[in-house]
Amino acid sequence: MNAEVRLMKNMLEANDQVAANNRDFFASQDMLVLNLIGSPGAGKTTLLLATLDQIDDYNVAVLQGDIETNIDAQRVAQTGTPVLQLNTHGACHLDARLVQQGFQEMSITPDILFIENIGNLVCPAQFDLGETAKVVVVSVTEGDDKPYKYPATFHCAGAVIITKLDLLEHTDFSIDRFLDGFRAVNKVAPCFPVSARTGQGLRPWLAWLKEQCSKVKTEAV
Amino acid sequence: MNAEVRLMKNMLEANDQVAANNRDFFASQDMLVLNLIGSPGAGKTTLLLATLDQIDDYNVAVLQGDIETNIDAQRVAQTGTPVLQLNTHGACHLDARLVQQGFQEMSITPDILFIENIGNLVCPAQFDLGETAKVVVVSVTEGDDKPYKYPATFHCAGAVIITKLDLLEHTDFSIDRFLDGFRAVNKVAPCFPVSARTGQGLRPWLAWLKEQCSKVKTEAV
Repeated sequence: MNAEVRLMKNMLEANDQVAANNRDFFASQDMLVLNLIGSPGAGKTTLLLATLDQIDDYNVAVLQGDIETNIDAQRVAQTGTPVLQLNTHGACHLDARLVQQGFQEMSITPDILFIENIGNLVCPAQFDLGETAKVVVVSVTEGDDKPYKYPATFHCAGAVIITKLDLLEHTDFSIDRFLDGFRAVNKVAPCFPVSARTGQGLRPWLAWLKEQCSKVKTEAV
Repeated sequence: MNAEVRLMKNMLEANDQVAANNRDFFASQDMLVLNLIGSPGAGKTTLLLATLDQIDDYNVAVLQGDIETNIDAQRVAQTGTPVLQLNTHGACHLDARLVQQGFQEMSITPDILFIENIGNLVCPAQFDLGETAKVVVVSVTEGDDKPYKYPATFHCAGAVIITKLDLLEHTDFSIDRFLDGFRAVNKVAPCFPVSARTGQGLRPWLAWLKEQCSKVKTEAV
């Protein structure tokens, strides 16, 4: 094993340890924690805003990952939802330590914590944050070949959301071709095609979200 | 400096050394080498195909980077352009060594070599390949905030191409807002809004490309 591979292994192991602590803590607080992963511009924040609008009977908080700026955190803050910006200043993914520190700083215990990761379909999937599940967000404008090209990311998804469904008719995206690729690497996770802009398809995603929330609380009993 | 930062520095330095060799070699052969960087689904391959179609008076070759699959290389091969697939098998960026090995394997000397990097707007910008220039590709569907959120990538661009202009009317993308963000980090690189699908806007990009090609040959004299 060369130095680079060994160091990457050490980094991931150290991260996994902090992530395991995060996971234990989140479970002890009956929290559902979702790690939103997707390309730049996949529509993670817009989906988040449309979702927050529909779950006001839950206590929700957001950790907003970005390399620079707090554009997205400001958008979330306008909804009144507690949000903390996590800037990585160059790094291409959030890690478990950043999430731990950010969450401690917020000093609240929501029912649901959304962690919006850095816009990147590759690296975030490798770093466990201690989330309950990873939610992979992919837009129809990115093309239906994404599960074929980024199998590791889709393999570890607890759910997949296909966004920008209102643009479907203007693209060559085939939901069937996407699902063929997705099912080749992930047999179980549900897939929700939605348009956060029009509201189309949001209901099944929200139902899944609430179901996961109940499950977390039931498992804790 | 901790072990992780030190190793990253060493890795980048080792990469820069190979990249410098690549650059010297490409210059000695009067080759224009463009490193195409953009998010997954930004439209890099579609832009490349539309471009190849318009420059058949040049000898062109393509190194096609992907984590897995050869979907994009197959698309390029159908045009008759020499293409070699570079699979990183998990790695989120191409590096100078992969490009060196791939190019040696092709054993041709084109006027223009396009290197399509891994779909990722973050990491590829950090790894010099020895290219003449980086061309950053961003689609209108990704949103006009990208230069604000990924300043390092746009800072190092030799040119920027805004793709999917045919979808502009269906999005909130503002070219002015994009350019404001882009000019804040890069005062000199040209920006070409195009639709590879309709051909709109391709002419200035092709003119720039040919100008760069002449410049490489002139500088070599």
